[in-house]
Amino acid sequence: MLDPKASSTIRPEAVIVVTGSELVRGDLADENGPFLAASLARLGLVCRRITIVGDDPGLLESAIAEGLGADLCVISGGLGPTHDDRTIELLGKVAGRELHVDPELERAIDLVGRRYARNVGSAYHGYRAGVRKQASIPEGAHVLGLAGTAPGVALEYEGCAVVVLPGPPSELQGLWPAALASEPVQKVLVGVPPFQRRTLRFYGLSESALANALEQAGGEGGGITVTICARERELFADLFVELGAEARADELESALAAAGPDTLFARDERPIEVIVLDLARAQDLTVATAESCTGGLVAGRLTSVPGASDVFLGSVVAYANGVKEAALGVSEQMLAEHGAVSAECALELALGARRALAVDVAVSVTGIAGPDGGTAEKPVGLVYLCAAGPDGQIEQEIRFAGGRNQIRRYAAVAALHLLRRFLAQIGDS
Amino acid sequence: MLDPKASSTIRPEAVIVVTGSELVRGDLADENGPFLAASLARLGLVCRRITIVGDDPGLLESAIAEGLGADLCVISGGLGPTHDDRTIELLGKVAGRELHVDPELERAIDLVGRRYARNVGSAYHGYRAGVRKQASIPEGAHVLGLAGTAPGVALEYEGCAVVVLPGPPSELQGLWPAALASEPVQKVLVGVPPFQRRTLRFYGLSESALANALEQAGGEGGGITVTICARERELFADLFVELGAEARADELESALAAAGPDTLFARDERPIEVIVLDLARAQDLTVATAESCTGGLVAGRLTSVPGASDVFLGSVVAYANGVKEAALGVSEQMLAEHGAVSAECALELALGARRALAVDVAVSVTGIAGPDGGTAEKPVGLVYLCAAGPDGQIEQEIRFAGGRNQIRRYAAVAALHLLRRFLAQIGDS
Repeated sequence: MLDPKASSTIRPEAVIVVTGSELVRGDLADENGPFLAASLARLGLVCRRITIVGDDPGLLESAIAEGLGADLCVISGGLGPTHDDRTIELLGKVAGRELHVDPELERAIDLVGRRYARNVGSAYHGYRAGVRKQASIPEGAHVLGLAGTAPGVALEYEGCAVVVLPGPPSELQGLWPAALASEPVQKVLVGVPPFQRRTLRFYGLSESALANALEQAGGEGGGITVTICARERELFADLFVELGAEARADELESALAAAGPDTLFARDERPIEVIVLDLARAQDLTVATAESCTGGLVAGRLTSVPGASDVFLGSVVAYANGVKEAALGVSEQMLAEHGAVSAECALELALGARRALAVDVAVSVTGIAGPDGGTAEKPVGLVYLCAAGPDGQIEQEIRFAGGRNQIRRYAAVAALHLLRRFLAQIGDS
Repeated sequence: MLDPKASSTIRPEAVIVVTGSELVRGDLADENGPFLAASLARLGLVCRRITIVGDDPGLLESAIAEGLGADLCVISGGLGPTHDDRTIELLGKVAGRELHVDPELERAIDLVGRRYARNVGSAYHGYRAGVRKQASIPEGAHVLGLAGTAPGVALEYEGCAVVVLPGPPSELQGLWPAALASEPVQKVLVGVPPFQRRTLRFYGLSESALANALEQAGGEGGGITVTICARERELFADLFVELGAEARADELESALAAAGPDTLFARDERPIEVIVLDLARAQDLTVATAESCTGGLVAGRLTSVPGASDVFLGSVVAYANGVKEAALGVSEQMLAEHGAVSAECALELALGARRALAVDVAVSVTGIAGPDGGTAEKPVGLVYLCAAGPDGQIEQEIRFAGGRNQIRRYAAVAALHLLRRFLAQIGDS
């Protein structure tokens, strides 16, 4: 991480304030703090803290006041039309700015509200007060646009760029580019000393093996900070390289890559599903999935990518054995002999998906996600995968630890990585 | 939320402090805050804030100092053997307690360390300093047990129960029962006044309509706190009811329910996929999905539920038209006439899934998730759904705003709610 003490240069500091009663009650895990923190780190800022408070005005006010001491303060949530949405009011109070109704904003919110009322078939008159409230912004604030009926705003306060964004993660993420482009935030960003970020991504390498390689190569320092972090079973090594430290960075990068050359799969941050689609597209190959324990998660990830449809044709989620047989032609005899969680079944699922969905390459997953259904021989967490193509297939057996949803998520990641490896092999041959 | 100021009784307040550089960098989303907050809310405590800081000693020290002002302060992380794990040292400093090596703890940690070194085949001598460090605890601290080589501890400091737990979520959760049972925490818990929590959930009602209903019914107060919160297009109204306020709570609950009787679908917190599976199971009906734009997300949510397999049999993700035709028997002529995003196609997809997957009830989704592919007539966000069963079907057309992934997620939620409505109708008929 860009630790200002380890750096020869001083980096702007950010504070993230997240508000939402459901968050301090534990009904929902905050996604905005991690999203914003990751984005700010990539931009070269240091995040001092993430503060999560409910809708108690006193606590929110003091969290905002504390945030205004940083170079950048991003506040999420509390922008709704109801009485307990107080972020704008409290920001105005802390920053000593009167609120005023922005007429253009009022019209825009009004329009969204009317459309919504029409869609859900409810009367609109009840929305008026909420519209005025949501169109009220502090003097000097820049409007970043609307997400739903909530506006994002940015303003400058005594050398601090303050950004206020709606709480729903998709709305916050939708307005974030506009926040970064706003004048107050741009003033902070131009002050970030230049740096490079280099990323190495491994799948199938242990965190300690990579940490050892880093240590033996002399570790960080000299204008380079290295973070090693496991995310969804991928291992990320990020090098933050200050101006002038590029040669040393080349050395370190080679040493880290050498820790697991077969497991190094990317030097950028494209999600694995994007990498898979790009590999298939480059070879003009179509792709499908046949999923049992992952229940559609692999297909869900592949179709999350815009434009996936030129490569990804479809999937059969074959949860019941009857569906495995009817939709994918898996043989009853094989199921009776080996069971649905077996290498044999994974193979038939992949071959069946190639045939039934008429694709070049299909990947299959079958396993025991638990919590029940495990045996001594086939414990919870056992997963079989197969990727099949025009000239053969590759298979994999893995045992994952963890709860049902972790096993499912990890199995989906494993399927995408098997597909990547298979597509890369086809490309190399 | 249990807002002490709105209550006639005073509830103990908690602060959660989470430390970890990977968390303020956004490399990882904190799971401990949500876990602890949910547990404390169920116990009737008010969580004032969750503070997430990195390993900067100054920031961690001030976060701890702030936490010690609450009735209960739970601190997670920073208990490892390395130099940047400083939680215990800083707690000792803030609370003015000397650290001492607990001999029993030292022996226990030593044992775990030797076993670990043997397992990974490394020499043990390097671990010594770490063992002494991890066995050092503040005067007066209760040891809660070990997770890995990190001990959890609890202590009392000027009316505040302080609990320190390791950062890895599984380790923290493993020691949490011991923390709750410890003397300092028990002293806080006996002071919690009794309360009820009531939940109303709506789908298709606007936040402002519900807020209006609350206001017209006299609002909160008198021992009742109400929170209204939208989550994935569902609207949650939570009533926290203190002892003696039950009659008033009944009134408020009826008034809120009357705001959208057709949209009120649950009075508990079961996820919508669980509600759907429970409804189907109660009627002995099997379920499948046929998904285009959601690409497996509906199936993914249904199969996230343990034991889903007795109801959910499978899904066809028919992304390409060829798959719609081959796997689900959608007619080429209909596609040519109405297109894949049409009510006609949604109907054929649902009927095709019933047939191909041999289920009682199937739900289908087809739409334009964007960002490309929209036209004036069929814009991005347009989604058609259909739920079909033995005695007919219901259809729905919705236009969602937002980016690709929001449209997909909302469409998946809409499909689950359409399925719920359809299954409830079957149950009523």
